[in-house]
Amino acid sequence: MDQFSNGDIFIGEIIGTAVLILFGAGVCAAVTLTRSKAKAAGWVVIAFGWGFGVLAGAYTAGPLSGGHLNPAVTLGIAVDTGHWDKVPVYVAGQLVGAVLGAVLCWLAYYAQFAANAEAENAQPTLGIFSTVPEVRSPVANLLTEVIATMGLVLPVLAFGLTKGLGQSGTQTLMVSFVVVGIGLSLGGPTGYAINPARDLGPRIAHAVLPIPNKGTSDWGYSWIPVAGPLIGAALSGLIFNAAY
Amino acid sequence: MDQFSNGDIFIGEIIGTAVLILFGAGVCAAVTLTRSKAKAAGWVVIAFGWGFGVLAGAYTAGPLSGGHLNPAVTLGIAVDTGHWDKVPVYVAGQLVGAVLGAVLCWLAYYAQFAANAEAENAQPTLGIFSTVPEVRSPVANLLTEVIATMGLVLPVLAFGLTKGLGQSGTQTLMVSFVVVGIGLSLGGPTGYAINPARDLGPRIAHAVLPIPNKGTSDWGYSWIPVAGPLIGAALSGLIFNAAY
Amino acid sequence: MDQFSNGDIFIGEIIGTAVLILFGAGVCAAVTLTRSKAKAAGWVVIAFGWGFGVLAGAYTAGPLSGGHLNPAVTLGIAVDTGHWDKVPVYVAGQLVGAVLGAVLCWLAYYAQFAANAEAENAQPTLGIFSTVPEVRSPVANLLTEVIATMGLVLPVLAFGLTKGLGQSGTQTLMVSFVVVGIGLSLGGPTGYAINPARDLGPRIAHAVLPIPNKGTSDWGYSWIPVAGPLIGAALSGLIFNAAY
Amino acid sequence: MDQFSNGDIFIGEIIGTAVLILFGAGVCAAVTLTRSKAKAAGWVVIAFGWGFGVLAGAYTAGPLSGGHLNPAVTLGIAVDTGHWDKVPVYVAGQLVGAVLGAVLCWLAYYAQFAANAEAENAQPTLGIFSTVPEVRSPVANLLTEVIATMGLVLPVLAFGLTKGLGQSGTQTLMVSFVVVGIGLSLGGPTGYAINPARDLGPRIAHAVLPIPNKGTSDWGYSWIPVAGPLIGAALSGLIFNAAY
Repeated sequence: MDQFSNGDIFIGEIIGTAVLILFGAGVCAAVTLTRSKAKAAGWVVIAFGWGFGVLAGAYTAGPLSGGHLNPAVTLGIAVDTGHWDKVPVYVAGQLVGAVLGAVLCWLAYYAQFAANAEAENAQPTLGIFSTVPEVRSPVANLLTEVIATMGLVLPVLAFGLTKGLGQSGTQTLMVSFVVVGIGLSLGGPTGYAINPARDLGPRIAHAVLPIPNKGTSDWGYSWIPVAGPLIGAALSGLIFNAAY
Repeated sequence: MDQFSNGDIFIGEIIGTAVLILFGAGVCAAVTLTRSKAKAAGWVVIAFGWGFGVLAGAYTAGPLSGGHLNPAVTLGIAVDTGHWDKVPVYVAGQLVGAVLGAVLCWLAYYAQFAANAEAENAQPTLGIFSTVPEVRSPVANLLTEVIATMGLVLPVLAFGLTKGLGQSGTQTLMVSFVVVGIGLSLGGPTGYAINPARDLGPRIAHAVLPIPNKGTSDWGYSWIPVAGPLIGAALSGLIFNAAY
Repeated sequence: MDQFSNGDIFIGEIIGTAVLILFGAGVCAAVTLTRSKAKAAGWVVIAFGWGFGVLAGAYTAGPLSGGHLNPAVTLGIAVDTGHWDKVPVYVAGQLVGAVLGAVLCWLAYYAQFAANAEAENAQPTLGIFSTVPEVRSPVANLLTEVIATMGLVLPVLAFGLTKGLGQSGTQTLMVSFVVVGIGLSLGGPTGYAINPARDLGPRIAHAVLPIPNKGTSDWGYSWIPVAGPLIGAALSGLIFNAAY
Repeated sequence: MDQFSNGDIFIGEIIGTAVLILFGAGVCAAVTLTRSKAKAAGWVVIAFGWGFGVLAGAYTAGPLSGGHLNPAVTLGIAVDTGHWDKVPVYVAGQLVGAVLGAVLCWLAYYAQFAANAEAENAQPTLGIFSTVPEVRSPVANLLTEVIATMGLVLPVLAFGLTKGLGQSGTQTLMVSFVVVGIGLSLGGPTGYAINPARDLGPRIAHAVLPIPNKGTSDWGYSWIPVAGPLIGAALSGLIFNAAY
């Protein structure tokens, strides 16, 4: 991470994570909200939407910060490389970018949020911004997030992507498809945060944005999609250092 | 853009944009018209159809013009590089190609257009050619197109694709998947023009082609899918020049 | 084409085309036949199944013949390069391979063909092997096949794939996604043969295999998916030679 | 295979196969179990989930073992290269990894397995772990597995992937899409084991894990998804040695 300046890292992670969340929250809005053309388009749409959000975001952040977009990726790389100096700048940029991306999603779907609020069967809107478990069970939910995050961070470390996800075309593409796979395969129980910024940033946005009839921001659950991915990333770094 | 001759640019953009619109309008015909095997095949089909249209079109135009296929891409590259000479040739080729592609789609689905016109629940056909918003709201629709276009042009500029989308295999593939992602994630409100030629060219074709029972060409909306993408592209160019 | 020996070409095209048809007819069996896990899985499954059949087949044939797998690709390359010597060997291998692939598909789905024959709503089986138009109209059907084939052969020629589809990893992948796109976008009217061997070989297999309750082999339609792709390929070669 | 140490091979195949089965069994859990967000999401989800599991697993195992993840791949490579020394280490790692991956899937979906056991229409759980044929017919089922495995091993050998699936980015991606294609096209009859470890390891896990209301482990069928892929791999190696 040391080849990027602090300023470039901060700006790059803001832009890249904003793009990621714009796509990711966007696809959840697309399939959830009334009067969206993709209403109820199914799980395959969600998984590919998030995966290609990683592609677009990592691609965009690449020249400035390498494109981590995710504190779990940053932590895994730090455990692997032993370089911790830039971690706070990465994480700060990721959180700011995640809030910004959620705001952009809300603006892009402004008319749909309004239509949803007025619909008879108005959907709660938190699931567009942050993850909501299907069965509420802290231990099981945490475990799911730990395991799903290892499915992301282990491959990233195994191929030596210690700069980030957005510096080699083919590998950026591969990481994006791995993220699609995690969504398809491991998203069922908790909606796969696998990224603390991806969950916390949009939850902050959800809490403060003037969305009509928006429902709860569910802060009681919010620690799990932060703690689970960080534990999974740390475990991945330790396994990687031991085995490779 | 300067390494291509005006003649090659014009021909290349005509052929490439025609292929893009043939695939893109084609997939909308495939899921809309009666007696099509892909009738009602869902949003995932539309998003991948358009994305692989970008792949095929950029791939085809690559050797002649680099493959812009989109005045918003051309504008973003011009703002970035400061080279404006060839912009009119690119845009002229893109518009001619978009009309041509729409005509080819109509020919490929000739029997389906006829069957649709005679069906009891005949669908309006404009949505096959041009975008139609789900909620009609000029400000919200414009904002959606601005944001969605930034999701295309920022990644394109960030990786230095200043020649076009069709000159490096891996990057052409990545841009195509980004376009799939934009469709999945940001297509819900307006049907994602993100390309003035993609909307205006087929709208002209829709207005003049002898399609039976075709319904309105909705010229009142037509300025939004032109203005929105151009604003989004200009903003992307300015952000890119400031941040990178 | 001249760097491959006649023997290698013949064997390579047999193996590669057999793999293509095994996947392609296989996916049609998968979504059509009763007691298949993918029964009624939708158009997106068909389009990706055929596209990845091109990937697997071209990949397999690559070292021996370059991987054409399609008389329309062979014709387009011959018109482009002016080398016609090997055309008969390519086409012979493609036809033999297409028959062989259809037989392998029948063996892989043996129990499902039997279950289908005994089902109350037994499906006609020709659509698993060969294309069947939704609206029977020789002129419109031919036009659809001409246009759809140009969507394949023009990109192939534009990137100089004059050896075949299976010699560069990234380009093989791109061609496969272009084929997925053709299926999604242009498959609605006729089921997109875009390959004379892909239609004629399996039709021969359908006519001779002892499939119970198999229905007609519809020889009256069989000239269209042969003539249409050949016309489209020849036009693509002429356009390419004029414009590039 | 000779460039990797026995220790690295064993560890690499354990990690990589565990990732493969975590994704693969995971996607089957995702679409099968009650209270999963991807419940009933369809065949396309299953095929892409398994394919991207190959991508993630091969990618992760690559630096340690090349990434075979499958005794059929190991056998095909051994028949091709004539190097048999490391085969037992590869296969041992694959089996251990497959059991481990199934346990991780069970942990990730712990709350869903519990909810399924209590549901009125509780689904049998074996199909999450191992393959179950739609029509029970040893000869037909074996033939399907032989043919489907040849669709994997022939392309792998044809491109000289004699180290494994995880050493070249583009080729790892291509093999993953070939596996998606096999699922879409040839998974209908038996659920496509095409990998003895993928079926046997999770079946062992299913037999011993304390899953409530889990149903039979169906050992009577278990030899077919072992024998079929091995026969298919041996045939592929022989064809390859004869034809290439």
